[in-house]
Amino acid sequence: MSESVSLVLFSGTDDKLHAAATIAAGASAMGRPVNVLVQFWALDAFRKERIALDHGLAFDAVRPGSTTATVPAGSLPWAETFRQAKELGDVQIRACSASMALFAIDPSELDPLVDDVCGIASFFLDVGDGSLVFI
Amino acid sequence: MSESVSLVLFSGTDDKLHAAATIAAGASAMGRPVNVLVQFWALDAFRKERIALDHGLAFDAVRPGSTTATVPAGSLPWAETFRQAKELGDVQIRACSASMALFAIDPSELDPLVDDVCGIASFFLDVGDGSLVFI
Amino acid sequence: MSESVSLVLFSGTDDKLHAAATIAAGASAMGRPVNVLVQFWALDAFRKERIALDHGLAFDAVRPGSTTATVPAGSLPWAETFRQAKELGDVQIRACSASMALFAIDPSELDPLVDDVCGIASFFLDVGDGSLVFI
Repeated sequence: MSESVSLVLFSGTDDKLHAAATIAAGASAMGRPVNVLVQFWALDAFRKERIALDHGLAFDAVRPGSTTATVPAGSLPWAETFRQAKELGDVQIRACSASMALFAIDPSELDPLVDDVCGIASFFLDVGDGSLVFI
Repeated sequence: MSESVSLVLFSGTDDKLHAAATIAAGASAMGRPVNVLVQFWALDAFRKERIALDHGLAFDAVRPGSTTATVPAGSLPWAETFRQAKELGDVQIRACSASMALFAIDPSELDPLVDDVCGIASFFLDVGDGSLVFI
Repeated sequence: MSESVSLVLFSGTDDKLHAAATIAAGASAMGRPVNVLVQFWALDAFRKERIALDHGLAFDAVRPGSTTATVPAGSLPWAETFRQAKELGDVQIRACSASMALFAIDPSELDPLVDDVCGIASFFLDVGDGSLVFI
């Protein structure tokens, strides 16, 4: 069996979530199990009522002196890419229980992309010997 | 022996340091050796006189258009979580020598959580075949 | 053969690119193959005409309430460190094809540090069982 790829999603901007979804889809397409733990600002972006909204771009896009052209938000449909990653293979998306408490989010408020809620120790059981990536 | 988890701590905001401390504690609780290299803005946050101060939150919390509720800084006692991670298992925290020079920090200025100072090549000896995470 | 280290470069600020170059050089010096996928804001910084410019620092340096001294940009010659990493060992730098399209960048516009252009699935073939790091 191929080694798993585990992603800790911390950031909640559309460009980083897009990058994360692409990594999940790429790993899934190569036959690897993918474990995603969603926490902090990323968790906020996975709320059912906010997942389709514009979540802005990373600081790189707006930093003082930046001359970078703005990436159109519509070109970064990261939730759809996560859906495709799940169809391609074995992709589990879990909400971090500590962040659920910190942001006072109820499981019923999360988009169905999120499979369940778990703690960090339980997440590490799935990480095993595979790659661990923080985004 | 379980595979090690190695963290390069770059960011100095309280939310990312909290996420890092939680990963260190989770890995340590699962019996994994944890190696932490502290550099750049994270190193600044590990100064003895600043470690207990408010270091703010990541850009996600204050980005243009953000509607996210502010997380209370008092709920993110990351230094305490690192202390617990060290009590749970084998957690080494090292300051990056290049960042020490860049920020002109003397080892005596660092919080006792930091075990020693090392270079990147020496850090890679500890990484071995384990996971490498950049935060 | 030693395990590879694969870096996904997303961020385009000089401090994060410097940290990435240092990790590439450290891994290369330890005899590890290094695969770098350059995307988003990092890709913009690898344009031939912009690679030597000042790309600013991460949000940590300018966040509200920050008292951190500014790091002089001239002390962070990350492109030179990537060049040295390539001389030290086996370091491949590839531009992400999806980001090339998103930013409308032609391969001829990229600095010669970039070896070629590839997609995420092709990148995962090189990742193999090695470490995967997102910066």
